[in-house]
Parts: sequence; C-alpha cells; structure tokens
Amino acid sequence: MLSADKLYLITDEKQVGYLTGYRTADGYAVIDHGKNLFFIDSRYYYAVKKQLGAAWQVMLGSYKEAMEYLAAKKETVYVDYDYTTLAFSKALESYGIKTADYSEEMKAAMIYKSETELKYIEKACAIAEKAFKNTLKVLKVGMTELEAATYLESEFKRLGASGTSFETIVGFGAGSAVPHHMTGKTKLKPETVVLMDFGCLYKGYCSDMTRTFYFGSKPPKEFVKAYDSVLRAHEATYDGIYEGIPCADVDKIARDVLTADGYGKLFTHSLGHGVGVNIHEAPALSPRGKGELHNGMVHSIEPGVYINGKFGIRIEDTVCMKDGKAHTFMKVTKKLFKVKVKY
Amino acid sequence: MLSADKLYLITDEKQVGYLTGYRTADGYAVIDHGKNLFFIDSRYYYAVKKQLGAAWQVMLGSYKEAMEYLAAKKETVYVDYDYTTLAFSKALESYGIKTADYSEEMKAAMIYKSETELKYIEKACAIAEKAFKNTLKVLKVGMTELEAATYLESEFKRLGASGTSFETIVGFGAGSAVPHHMTGKTKLKPETVVLMDFGCLYKGYCSDMTRTFYFGSKPPKEFVKAYDSVLRAHEATYDGIYEGIPCADVDKIARDVLTADGYGKLFTHSLGHGVGVNIHEAPALSPRGKGELHNGMVHSIEPGVYINGKFGIRIEDTVCMKDGKAHTFMKVTKKLFKVKVKY
Repeated sequence: MLSADKLYLITDEKQVGYLTGYRTADGYAVIDHGKNLFFIDSRYYYAVKKQLGAAWQVMLGSYKEAMEYLAAKKETVYVDYDYTTLAFSKALESYGIKTADYSEEMKAAMIYKSETELKYIEKACAIAEKAFKNTLKVLKVGMTELEAATYLESEFKRLGASGTSFETIVGFGAGSAVPHHMTGKTKLKPETVVLMDFGCLYKGYCSDMTRTFYFGSKPPKEFVKAYDSVLRAHEATYDGIYEGIPCADVDKIARDVLTADGYGKLFTHSLGHGVGVNIHEAPALSPRGKGELHNGMVHSIEPGVYINGKFGIRIEDTVCMKDGKAHTFMKVTKKLFKVKVKY
Repeated sequence: MLSADKLYLITDEKQVGYLTGYRTADGYAVIDHGKNLFFIDSRYYYAVKKQLGAAWQVMLGSYKEAMEYLAAKKETVYVDYDYTTLAFSKALESYGIKTADYSEEMKAAMIYKSETELKYIEKACAIAEKAFKNTLKVLKVGMTELEAATYLESEFKRLGASGTSFETIVGFGAGSAVPHHMTGKTKLKPETVVLMDFGCLYKGYCSDMTRTFYFGSKPPKEFVKAYDSVLRAHEATYDGIYEGIPCADVDKIARDVLTADGYGKLFTHSLGHGVGVNIHEAPALSPRGKGELHNGMVHSIEPGVYINGKFGIRIEDTVCMKDGKAHTFMKVTKKLFKVKVKY
C-alpha cells in the first residue's frame, strides 16, 4: 500500500472510508511512517473509536490538532493533489508544512480490490439488479423518466443501499440517444426504446449497470440490428479480456466489432472505467488508456451506439478480473428483451 | 458583482450554474474584463448555446481551449482557491498561468439574492413543505428512519425538485438527540419524538428546514418544556433581526433565551447559515460569525437542544431579510404538534 517511509495526510471522504472503514469528510487521517492516526472532533469521537479497529489510533481533535501534529514532524507531508484545494494548501503553508503529491500511489493501491471490497461491490450490484427488476414491473404508459428513476432509487434504499453511486439516467425514445441524458419529464409511450443507467452504494462501494430494452411488442429492425452489434461488442470484450491485456486493447475489441458493423463513429465514449469507492477510477479502458488489466481489478464494460433523434443502446456490466478472466457481477440478461405495455 | 478589470476562470459546478443558469461540472466559464465566455465541449455545446442568453458567448472547446485562451492573455487569472485543486493549479502553471484568489469577491456577490433567486428558493421551500406534509400522512409504527427519509425524497422529485439539497436526517427517539444523526434502521414506535431535517433543490437552489414533533398522544413533560424553550429562542431570533444586525448577535439572541432556561450548554451548534446554490454559504450566524445581516440575504434560523440518550429538538426555517425584517419562506407550524399513532 502506501510507503512506510513517508508522512501522509488523507482528507478526501472516500479515501478516508477506504482506509479506515468510516466514511467522513470531517476527519483527518495521518499515516506517519506506517503508524495510523485519525483526528476526529468530539461530535464523532466515540462513534469512530468504537468502529475503527486496533490498526488506528483515534485522536480527539480536528483541523488544528492535525496541523500541529504534522508541523512538529518537520518533514514533507504527502497529500492528494487531486483533492487538496489551494485554500487548504495555503493553510498548510501557514503552518510551515511543505507538501508533495501521493495521488498516483493511492490510485495504484486502490486499483486492486480485497476480498471484502469485492463482497461489497457484489452486494451493490445485487441490490441494483433487484431494484431494476422491481422497476420493470411498475413501468406503464404515461410514467415520466423522473418517476421511473425515483422509483428505482427508492428501491435501492429499501433493499439496503445507502444511496445512488451516481445520478440515475433514464432515457425514453430519443432521450436514450444522448449518452449524458438528463432524466426528465418525457412520458413513456407504447413502442419505445428505454435506456436505464444506474448504480447504488453499499458500504461505500459502487455498482454501475446499464440495460436497454423495448417497451412494446414490435421493436424496429434498425434498433434490433444495432442492439445485436452492441451485444456482440460487449460479449467479445468480456471473452477477450486476459491477465495483462493493455487497457487500450480492451476498448479496441469492442470498437472493432462496432466498426465492422458500421457503427464505429456512433460509439462516442470509451469502453469502461474502474469502479470502487469512486464510480469512476483507474483503470481507464479507452483508446488512450494506459497500463494493463490485472487480477483483482474491477471495471465496467459498456459499449454503446447512439443514433441522434432516434434511439441509443448501451449494455453495461460491472466485472472483476479473476484467474485471468473477466467475471461479471450481473445476472440480469444482456439479450434484448421486451416489456409488455401496461396502462 | 465581479470586477470588470480582471480575468476570471470559474469551474465550480454551482458557481457556473449561478452565473450562467446552466449547471455543469464540464464547462469552463471565463470572465475577461466584463466579457463572458463559456467553453463547453461538443456533447453539450448545442444545449448550452440554446439555453444561455446573449450575455454569454459559447465557445466550442474544453480544457485545452480554455487554457490556451487564458495563457494568451498573459495576465493573472483569478480562480476560487476553495475549489481549485493543487493538480489543477499545477496544470495552470504548466501553461505559464499565474493565479490569484477570487473566493471572497464571489461570496460577497452570492450573499445577496436577486428576485429570481428568491423565487427559486421560495419554490424549493414550498416543495419541501408539501413533501413533509405528505410524509406525515404515511408515518406508521414499524417504519424505519430510512423508509421515512426515502419517502420524503421521492416526494421531492414527484413534486418537481431535482433532488435533495443535503442528506435527509430522520431521527426517532434517542436518534433525534444526535445533531448529525445517520438516518438508519431504527423503527418507529408509539410515543416517540421525531426529528426531520431536510431540503430539496429547485433550479439549483436549496431549501433547508427542520421540524420536531411527537408521534403519539402523551409527550413527556421534559420534552414539552424543552420544546417551548427552543420555540421561544426561534421566535425571539426571528423577531429580533434587523437590517445591519451583527451576525454574532443573531446567534446570541437564541443562545440567551436557551441559557436563561438552563439549556445553553445543550445548544451545541450555531444558529444558522446562508442558503443559496450551496446549502451552507455566507453569512455564518455563529458566536464567531463576522459581518452583518442585510436586506436580500437568505439564511436558516435553527436553534436546537439535545439531551443525550433521550431526545433532541431543532426548529428550523429558511428565511429572507427584506425591508429590515426576517420573512420566513415556511408555512408549516413551528408549534409542537402530535401525529396520531397508526399501525
């Protein structure tokens, strides 16, 4: 993990949760040459002390106490430059503290998931799937995208998730063609393509999933044909992943299938991204993605095709690399399915 | 507002929404000596161009284009040190760009609300109140805090809010005594104190409200007595506010009432905070709060008393200072009310 030869200050809420198991934006985690200290004020002190294991020494205090501890060390403090603001950096300077960046070290550590982390992600995926299946049952003509999203999200919570891992996307018809669609007031009509992209949080870990399906009985040929191509792109990627495959090559497998079918230019985003305490983290599975996929990494596979003004298709699973192969956390079919029109 | 003699770069999502009316984390707003430019990539370009008025010149581009534009100016770029990360600051440096901080200027501008902003906040408050009243109707024995919160939040969306302005707090019984209570799986029992602290987002603007009430028919005397004190502290503050009152004095009005009643030490937080596109913004109404309250400012009034292990009480409205007086946006009674036990 992090080096035993350095002094670290961790303040990002998700990283604090990752390291200590207690997610808060109000604590200051210090790793002092391998010794773990957590500064937390009186509001949370007893709750934190109860929850943190023997690996962490809980210190009653907050900003001031953490700063004084670090300043007394008279050495470089490693902080995450991606999360440290200039205002906070000036405050560190006012204590005479010099900083360096630990962001790459942390990303490298977080990219490999432990058994416990995999269990949490698996549970986040299971809740998302169950909530999705329950939402399919309540879809009916006249329901808005926002109503469908709200129902799904309330199912997340009812099933034990602490919340969503990102803002739920529900696109009806032409709305499905916009990759970053704003879920809105469009009403569901019979014979419509529906795209739902969603995920929830369980013990601080994310799930990420997209399904595209048909609300009606007669999906247009153009849609069925494109769906088949996206599905083959997804499956080819899933089957083609191996231990050590360059990240850019993972994207290429899907892009090659879609290009051969004439959809290459309509696949307007990258193939996938790492999933953990962050909904987007390393590795980046894009044409310019660096590094390789290895056992223990968790990421999305999400090829898509978007035909402006008509429909969009995205099929996304969260998967884990294990024993040199991709293993999906998802059980809901990726084959095209129809939902019967209800009023 | 901001100075016409400086070059600004605004990237914080809420500030971008505040300035342009289009809330996104993906755009770069530049104010170049009074000229407004908005750099946005092709995914959003047409939507943004349609929505932004004549006051903004929409530029097709993203990070690189914005950086090159700023670098060519060869002058200090004002950024918000509270939102600019060290990583982004290093990127600016790599373009030869020197920065200064505009955070105080922006806070000073955002603290005064326009008529349009007041309308949005009023609507956010109205939605929150309606959702709360609907939630009161569904409360029943055995319901968990999380279920009550989820119902409230789905009502927000159904009634036209885009989401919550912060994580909803629902505390049953002893849970109400923890100011930063984590809404959990505690089940509602007959004869229980219930505290709900919540707010929603409308057009990017927040509402913030807390009510404490009694689920049952026989509220304990100790609770009724403390409730009466908190209510008087709230009302004294509301009535005591005047144009130009020092922020620290606003807190003092409530604290003096509670102290006289013997609850001073149990009021463990500050009296209130500004509300706008941020749920917490200037002014800070605390014993150490600086500055004064003036016409056009919007803030919370939220005195509270917390008796560990027993119950907590907080009564909170979002209010606006107008014509030298506080005007509440809330219509739901602040008097103690009982909710009939249902099974």
